[in-house]
Amino acid sequence: MSTDSLHVQIPKAEVLKFCEACMQSAGANKDHGRQLSEVLFAADYRGHFSHGLNRLPMYVRDIQAKITEKDGEPQILKESAGTAWVDGKNLLGPVVGNFCMDLAIKKAKDAGIGWVVAKGSNHYGIAGWYSLRALDQGLMGISMTNTSPLSAPTRSKEAVLGTNPMSFSAPGKDGDSFVLDMATTTVALGKIEMQKRKNEKMPLGWGQGADGVSSEDPRDVTDRGDAFNLLEDQRLPVVTRVTDSLPWLKFSAGFSAALITGPMFGQMFAAINPACFCDGFEDRLSDFMGMLRGLDPAEADKPVLVAGDPERQHMAKVDKDGGITYHKNLITSMNELAAELKVTPMKLL
Amino acid sequence: MSTDSLHVQIPKAEVLKFCEACMQSAGANKDHGRQLSEVLFAADYRGHFSHGLNRLPMYVRDIQAKITEKDGEPQILKESAGTAWVDGKNLLGPVVGNFCMDLAIKKAKDAGIGWVVAKGSNHYGIAGWYSLRALDQGLMGISMTNTSPLSAPTRSKEAVLGTNPMSFSAPGKDGDSFVLDMATTTVALGKIEMQKRKNEKMPLGWGQGADGVSSEDPRDVTDRGDAFNLLEDQRLPVVTRVTDSLPWLKFSAGFSAALITGPMFGQMFAAINPACFCDGFEDRLSDFMGMLRGLDPAEADKPVLVAGDPERQHMAKVDKDGGITYHKNLITSMNELAAELKVTPMKLL
Repeated sequence: MSTDSLHVQIPKAEVLKFCEACMQSAGANKDHGRQLSEVLFAADYRGHFSHGLNRLPMYVRDIQAKITEKDGEPQILKESAGTAWVDGKNLLGPVVGNFCMDLAIKKAKDAGIGWVVAKGSNHYGIAGWYSLRALDQGLMGISMTNTSPLSAPTRSKEAVLGTNPMSFSAPGKDGDSFVLDMATTTVALGKIEMQKRKNEKMPLGWGQGADGVSSEDPRDVTDRGDAFNLLEDQRLPVVTRVTDSLPWLKFSAGFSAALITGPMFGQMFAAINPACFCDGFEDRLSDFMGMLRGLDPAEADKPVLVAGDPERQHMAKVDKDGGITYHKNLITSMNELAAELKVTPMKLL
Repeated sequence: MSTDSLHVQIPKAEVLKFCEACMQSAGANKDHGRQLSEVLFAADYRGHFSHGLNRLPMYVRDIQAKITEKDGEPQILKESAGTAWVDGKNLLGPVVGNFCMDLAIKKAKDAGIGWVVAKGSNHYGIAGWYSLRALDQGLMGISMTNTSPLSAPTRSKEAVLGTNPMSFSAPGKDGDSFVLDMATTTVALGKIEMQKRKNEKMPLGWGQGADGVSSEDPRDVTDRGDAFNLLEDQRLPVVTRVTDSLPWLKFSAGFSAALITGPMFGQMFAAINPACFCDGFEDRLSDFMGMLRGLDPAEADKPVLVAGDPERQHMAKVDKDGGITYHKNLITSMNELAAELKVTPMKLL
């Protein structure tokens, strides 16, 4: 049996179609809605359920409330051989992100590297979507974004920095690749949202209550509005300092502390041509990843993983199953959204 | 009293002069020796004692044993508007690093960004030296290096990845700046070396013994040759994954696992012109850092710090004291080195 009482399966095409229909019903430009839907679908397909359908209502609300512009196009404000500065015109994050990464890719083909920074953007989904877009062109890709303030800087009581996700991708041979996609806090906020949706506890260390003490209740993080304080463990100096360091990489937009009001997302996108630096990069990277995967594992039944392997395993499972496996609570809320937006609910497998 | 029974103070100029004399006695080209000495001096001045005089004997031995070339110059192998690939010709790391960062700075001034990768380099000292070199020109700087294999990838028993230090610097106003300089493991190997020099234990979690269990004896890490296994805590997925992701950023050289024999260091250097992305970047960054420093601290007597603040505090202390404070054991070993190399020992303050 492919499902249990808590889960259902939905064909891939249904997910994509549903997202597009919802965004169009909310009023988004059709092409923009498709770009967003592709990113949300990719998140679920790759196993990052925190950033797929789970987040669809947020984008719908943002369009409905005119927090996000439903039409228009990003504008290049400034350009040099290797760089560009783009005004996202408050459009959907994926519309801005695709525009910027495509520009970075073009520059990388001419100048070896393209480094593009966007201001006036919005939530752009999984950071990995954009670095994968560079990978599709045989390039290395980097993508980063700021977020609303969720984490406290070193020694501070207050949360003013974001979870600041980042992604790096690099091409190996025969379609293999290195794909890192992560938050710089202990976990992404979306993972805490998912625990809430499933009515499950979160592990200690993921977040804290208003009293500053680590909590197992995801509501302590999700339901406190701009006061919530997703904690990276302050004993982890590396994590804290990486988080500290990120804002200047996205310097054309507001810093996280400013994001509690209005859309001030800043993102950066880089494409780098590995052929500028060595011959046979793909072979070298594949040799390296093969070496890593072949290492003696700490637990015999858990082979060593390279960034991107869990996602590849998840996509293979979806393809084998014929659809994506979702928690029933999530699909129930999607059906409610469908009813509200007068959109056909997703068909189960 | 400025010193205690365990510490001595040495004027700044003495440190620099001593390093230069030792390198010249070991046979290094005078200018190359000076470049190395400046990096080692900067490390101690900034408070990164693990990477200053502590490491001088290593560079001396590498020159004496002809592991590092004592003369020559780096060569540009390939170039585009925004990138360059450089053969370090197995010269001293700082000679390669300065060459590469200066090239990146030149490219950043023309193309907005310069991204330069070196192969055939050696230990280059603190990563921060190179990002600071970009900062001196009003640019943002990035620098990364691989290292010998010291950390185990996710789920692996074996250490095949490096501590892979990285540095980011960015200019604020009135000489203020953001300067991150860190290893991507729990601590830099040099900090474990310093515990050994001081005959002090290391905290649990810094490293492990041959049995794979966390150890308090720094010798468990430093004295096991190519088998030692500096552990980042495997429960820290972020750290592990950042470390995993680094090799491809330095893709023109060997990966860490290959470094146990011969010099195969790879490094990358980027300079980015913030004026390509927004107006008044320095003001914006200073506003941001001011906001961080003004946050309510978790402990009242420990103000919130921005990356670079501890180093600034240390430099101010050195200037006030009139010299750098060293552990006596370190200076004893420097005096032994001086005797061997027939170099005048450093004068105490």
